[in-house]
Amino acid sequence: MPERRISLRVIGIGPGGVKQVTVQAIEAMSGVDAFLMLDKGTAKQSLLDARTAILDAYAPSGYRVVEIADPPRDRRPADYDAEVRRWHAARVDAIATVLRSDVGDGGVAAFLVWGDPALYDSTLRIVEQLAALDDLHLDIEVVPGVTSASALTAAHGIVAHRIGEPVHITTGRRLPTTPKSVAGNQIVMLDGDLAFLTTADADDEIWWGAYVGTDDEILISGRVGDVGEQIRCARAQARDRIGWIMDIYLLRKAPGTPTDAE
Amino acid sequence: MPERRISLRVIGIGPGGVKQVTVQAIEAMSGVDAFLMLDKGTAKQSLLDARTAILDAYAPSGYRVVEIADPPRDRRPADYDAEVRRWHAARVDAIATVLRSDVGDGGVAAFLVWGDPALYDSTLRIVEQLAALDDLHLDIEVVPGVTSASALTAAHGIVAHRIGEPVHITTGRRLPTTPKSVAGNQIVMLDGDLAFLTTADADDEIWWGAYVGTDDEILISGRVGDVGEQIRCARAQARDRIGWIMDIYLLRKAPGTPTDAE
Repeated sequence: MPERRISLRVIGIGPGGVKQVTVQAIEAMSGVDAFLMLDKGTAKQSLLDARTAILDAYAPSGYRVVEIADPPRDRRPADYDAEVRRWHAARVDAIATVLRSDVGDGGVAAFLVWGDPALYDSTLRIVEQLAALDDLHLDIEVVPGVTSASALTAAHGIVAHRIGEPVHITTGRRLPTTPKSVAGNQIVMLDGDLAFLTTADADDEIWWGAYVGTDDEILISGRVGDVGEQIRCARAQARDRIGWIMDIYLLRKAPGTPTDAE
Repeated sequence: MPERRISLRVIGIGPGGVKQVTVQAIEAMSGVDAFLMLDKGTAKQSLLDARTAILDAYAPSGYRVVEIADPPRDRRPADYDAEVRRWHAARVDAIATVLRSDVGDGGVAAFLVWGDPALYDSTLRIVEQLAALDDLHLDIEVVPGVTSASALTAAHGIVAHRIGEPVHITTGRRLPTTPKSVAGNQIVMLDGDLAFLTTADADDEIWWGAYVGTDDEILISGRVGDVGEQIRCARAQARDRIGWIMDIYLLRKAPGTPTDAE
């Protein structure tokens, strides 16, 4: 097979708001032969619309989008890691086909990634697998983006930690296993079940946000015991109304909570 | 005392590169009566120069900067938290004086914050104390920025974690106390002593970066046992050459490392 040399840009576009895009990201949207769009089940159309708004705002007119059908995924597999790997491999095949046929030798392709490509996003893992294919030589550039964690804390006007403390970024799945000694400040992503409702103490504080940085932004904060149910209802109602939800929260242990390390 | 109503913008400007600034941050640089600059000891002039480059690029011409002398700080106090609080209080007094005299009722003031205001930056803590003063009514807006953690991972082209794993963000001071069960992926900031040289195993992987996102960027990655000393030397040489250093690293446990939770 002849080798194709392709520039591949992985562009962090921030957590949703058109204005939370960096100058570097905007510049990286120039000179792109194809923006590759990989999207996800139910949220598909809304997410595509939001990326289209960003491209309309910043990409040169006449930009070209290639939508790549997302292979089906089991969201509650027995073996989580194996299922994620299988799903990534199926996406790699689909994308490689597009790079060969629609971009070609000397071309430039780009992915737009919500938030920052380094946090709970599979694009860079897919790119690594693409780069391992014999017939593709990829020049990869990654553009960092504002994370949804930063958008959350900015919207609430808070620092992520008390003075000098660490911050633990985790997922709803992992939240129940966080050791108490590092549970002081946790930023929780990908939590469709609001795991804090079962793991947190009533006196812990929470700063929750959905669609942060967009016109649909919803913010709730307070003692878990006071606002936990309010968050549960607001989340369910918003998801019904908008059709999908992206939310995140910061959970902070009440001062003086005993930890298992002390 | 007559109350003064002042709009105060806390603007995250990303980790250093002029292009890692968001559109929202650029818009927030308009209509500002005074940009308040708080700077730090030895790094002072270089950091002021870098902020000036960002203001020159994006703020309306004729923008006004008010430099506020930074009170002296003990960097190795017996009581770290108490010293930080004392130092913040001294800064609050100095800033309140400027807000009363140089900004005034109905005015707009702004702080530019490196990276994101939510991570290891004292500006929002100072703002909270300013807001508590009887004669100042502050309308506060926080603009999130790209973190140095995102700039680091983008520069290395990596994801911050293995699939589904948590990420622990901590400081050099705290690194030795991270429980092994969450030490899988640590992003370490504020580490003048390169604490990983004593805490990490030789087989752990490190991705280190200094001045990330700027023209002076230095990147080193590999097994700690292979690149630890190289990082130590590169860091010392760069600090001597440039006069100050801002660095950060991601430390990842070798796969299969036993943890104290397993």
